Amino acid sequence: MNQNYEELMSKIEKAQAFQEALSLFEWDNQTLAPKMAMDNTAKTIGLLSNEFFSVMVNDRVKELIYLLSEEKEAETLTFNQKAIVKQLKKTFDQLEKIPPAEYQAYSELTAKANSIWAKAKEEKNFDAYKDTLGEIISYQKKFASYRQTGDQKLYDILLDDFEEGFTMEMLDQFFDKMKTAIIPLVKKISEKQDFIKRDFLNQSFSVEQQKKFSKEVAAYVGFDFDKGVIAESAHPFTLNLHNKDVRITTHYLEQNLESAIFSTIHECGHGIYEMNIADELTQTPVGGGTSMGVHESQSRFFENVIGRSEAFWVPLYEKLQAAFPGQLDAVSREDFVAAMNYSKPGLIRTEADELTYSLHVLIRYEIEKMIFADQVTVEELPALWNQKYQEYLGLTPSHDGEGVLQDIHWAGGSFGYFPSYALGSAIAAQIYDYMKSKIDVEDCLVKGNLKPIEAFLKEHIHQYGATKNTKELLLAMSGEAFNSDYYIAYLTDKYTKLYQL
Amino acid sequence: MNQNYEELMSKIEKAQAFQEALSLFEWDNQTLAPKMAMDNTAKTIGLLSNEFFSVMVNDRVKELIYLLSEEKEAETLTFNQKAIVKQLKKTFDQLEKIPPAEYQAYSELTAKANSIWAKAKEEKNFDAYKDTLGEIISYQKKFASYRQTGDQKLYDILLDDFEEGFTMEMLDQFFDKMKTAIIPLVKKISEKQDFIKRDFLNQSFSVEQQKKFSKEVAAYVGFDFDKGVIAESAHPFTLNLHNKDVRITTHYLEQNLESAIFSTIHECGHGIYEMNIADELTQTPVGGGTSMGVHESQSRFFENVIGRSEAFWVPLYEKLQAAFPGQLDAVSREDFVAAMNYSKPGLIRTEADELTYSLHVLIRYEIEKMIFADQVTVEELPALWNQKYQEYLGLTPSHDGEGVLQDIHWAGGSFGYFPSYALGSAIAAQIYDYMKSKIDVEDCLVKGNLKPIEAFLKEHIHQYGATKNTKELLLAMSGEAFNSDYYIAYLTDKYTKLYQL
Repeated sequence: MNQNYEELMSKIEKAQAFQEALSLFEWDNQTLAPKMAMDNTAKTIGLLSNEFFSVMVNDRVKELIYLLSEEKEAETLTFNQKAIVKQLKKTFDQLEKIPPAEYQAYSELTAKANSIWAKAKEEKNFDAYKDTLGEIISYQKKFASYRQTGDQKLYDILLDDFEEGFTMEMLDQFFDKMKTAIIPLVKKISEKQDFIKRDFLNQSFSVEQQKKFSKEVAAYVGFDFDKGVIAESAHPFTLNLHNKDVRITTHYLEQNLESAIFSTIHECGHGIYEMNIADELTQTPVGGGTSMGVHESQSRFFENVIGRSEAFWVPLYEKLQAAFPGQLDAVSREDFVAAMNYSKPGLIRTEADELTYSLHVLIRYEIEKMIFADQVTVEELPALWNQKYQEYLGLTPSHDGEGVLQDIHWAGGSFGYFPSYALGSAIAAQIYDYMKSKIDVEDCLVKGNLKPIEAFLKEHIHQYGATKNTKELLLAMSGEAFNSDYYIAYLTDKYTKLYQL
Repeated sequence: MNQNYEELMSKIEKAQAFQEALSLFEWDNQTLAPKMAMDNTAKTIGLLSNEFFSVMVNDRVKELIYLLSEEKEAETLTFNQKAIVKQLKKTFDQLEKIPPAEYQAYSELTAKANSIWAKAKEEKNFDAYKDTLGEIISYQKKFASYRQTGDQKLYDILLDDFEEGFTMEMLDQFFDKMKTAIIPLVKKISEKQDFIKRDFLNQSFSVEQQKKFSKEVAAYVGFDFDKGVIAESAHPFTLNLHNKDVRITTHYLEQNLESAIFSTIHECGHGIYEMNIADELTQTPVGGGTSMGVHESQSRFFENVIGRSEAFWVPLYEKLQAAFPGQLDAVSREDFVAAMNYSKPGLIRTEADELTYSLHVLIRYEIEKMIFADQVTVEELPALWNQKYQEYLGLTPSHDGEGVLQDIHWAGGSFGYFPSYALGSAIAAQIYDYMKSKIDVEDCLVKGNLKPIEAFLKEHIHQYGATKNTKELLLAMSGEAFNSDYYIAYLTDKYTKLYQL
């Protein structure tokens, strides 16, 4: 056993423990904590973040990380150990340049920002949030600038944090392709607008029954309730403490049956990924999913690729009908599935259909690029937001609650995150294409046996945690790096058939 | 500002943050965490406990605490600062003698013990728990022995942790008085057994309605939902992160209406205490309730002294009837209140009536004394338990699930805690006696205005947190130290009237 590595790990496991505590506070804050708790709790979160920082960022840790990164030392490490050192070096380099006091102040700020955002959204009042958002942006710019080298762009630094190796140059190309392919499709579909029946969704669906059915579907797709829980929050999310404590949230709206079901399946995709990470990796720096893009590929694969397919509902649709007696009797399975894939431009990203979703992401990507190029002020964000929605989706929000305030991400300081949603869909399509060459996915779904699908994902993606990055996972799986053509083909094929274009 | 004090506080606030994180893990573990999570999470809890330990127990902290405890330095401190130093000295002296590795191992053990106990209780299988319990007892004996001075008894050390200044000698006297007064009362009542109607309780009461009504009652007695939450757990408890994040749990049993209502009121008593602690004390070492006994005095005051009184139900009983349409129409308020005070020996402490409750505590007190005097082995506990239940309550458990496995406390290492329950009842009666000389309690209850009652408790008890101990609080309130005669008189009077003895 390498003694330097052992010494480094004894320090890092403390940092992991602080991180896990911070994750639990985050979970609690978003699902349960009382309204007035945050001022006091933020102090504690700030202190814990500071401790995390002190353990991670100091001369001895730096020395050990750099020593173990040298070729000669690295030779003595296993594959997983090397991946851990690499990941630590990345985290260290990110943190090292941030002064501890700034890091603590920033942690306290984002801890409070969540409830300030939630209140502002509820009250449709951007003014109540804009100073907080401005502060967060300033910190993000400052933190990125500390890491800037040469003529590197600030936003490229943030993009790389979420998806190693991806830059604005690559994403501009990716989104250009999307625009070229999707905008004409959306246009063609809008000309056939009345094709799909959705009237039956305009009913009240018992929240109690939605809860029951969502839980059933979660278990059905493979979410293991011995290792996970479901709770509720305004904005569904997944958070894990380790591979045997994986938490997802969903939300139940009496007037929107679709939302709870597909939010749940979506978060299950994230959750199953985390549950399947190898035991020897969990609670280490490479113990989580490898990137936001790959994470989203899993959630979108479950939600859209299989969850919205005809085959998926063969064993489930009668159960759904039974869960809401009398309410879906007159709706055939085919009509239900078609309705679940109905496409129409809307204002809310999280409620967007699979086809127009990427346009929502595109808008955020373009706005974030402008923020970090100092081309827009915080005050100008609502107007810019509305202008872009008009341009790409032909709609203008009637208030900021359904406009610039709709997403939680910026309140948590997550800039550079949104593009991962579109990348995730593209990665999902690429994985799906390869999966179909190995197993009969449709047959699995029709027979209600999702085990081979989960086993495939575990084998090629999940088990590795963050020991391999996106590119390495895809190459190891099929011999091909990221290729967005699969996604274009998938969407074109799916929507051409559905709308008989 | 005293610089030594400032330096000490900068260290202590870290310890507070770790403690708060540990509290959140405990809450989560008991209310939500998935079944398989604990092995991994225990590692994290162990590491955090260890960090707490390192921050609290080191030469510089010792030096500062002892320096600030000296008269000359203490003179420069405020009343609250002096109380903080005193409290720190107590905690320090408790921890200093425990080797860090043992402390961490013990923390991991108790983190796991909760689920082992819960499973054993569910399966009525003491064998599955006894090794864990044995280990916990060994640690507790060892830890107490590290602090032993002269011919001090181990159990006295534990008692003092929960109730400063209380010893076996005092408690033996207290329980002897109880026995002398209560056993004859219980006997007299048993001769009038059919006096009180309880048949109406043998119905199913909708859990959903119980939840709704319990929440209403919680708000009614003063639990502030902006600063607190209610969740569910097998064994109701209260836990607070600070004075604006106070959490209580309760449980709902379809066949037992009484249980949810009075468990909720009980925990509200604990919760309101914590919510009323002064802002300048919260998140400091004296930011919680002063002792288990005083804490229990508040919960029992709310649950029994007022909650089970006739006056309390005047404004509430019609609401209860309305919550369960048709189910309580034929039951008068007088009959309902009498039923809530019905007294009969039973096997389960948490379901015991106000009168026989102290006998359950007595049994645990006697058993704990024997454990720490090495007069009983872990293997012998079930038989000893059953024998004592037969002796004092005339009943023998049919299995260990309703016997020695019924309480969670020992799984958390809480030995010396149980006597606080009986002391709490006695303190509640003493406070009540004085309160009645200052405000018209019955009138407040009848009018549905509990504010003067809460204000009284805040003024004399709550606000001080742990800056004053039990004795100091009672003396400052009424000029009299702890006196159990009020309790004897209260019980005798209440049950003599109720049962027309």
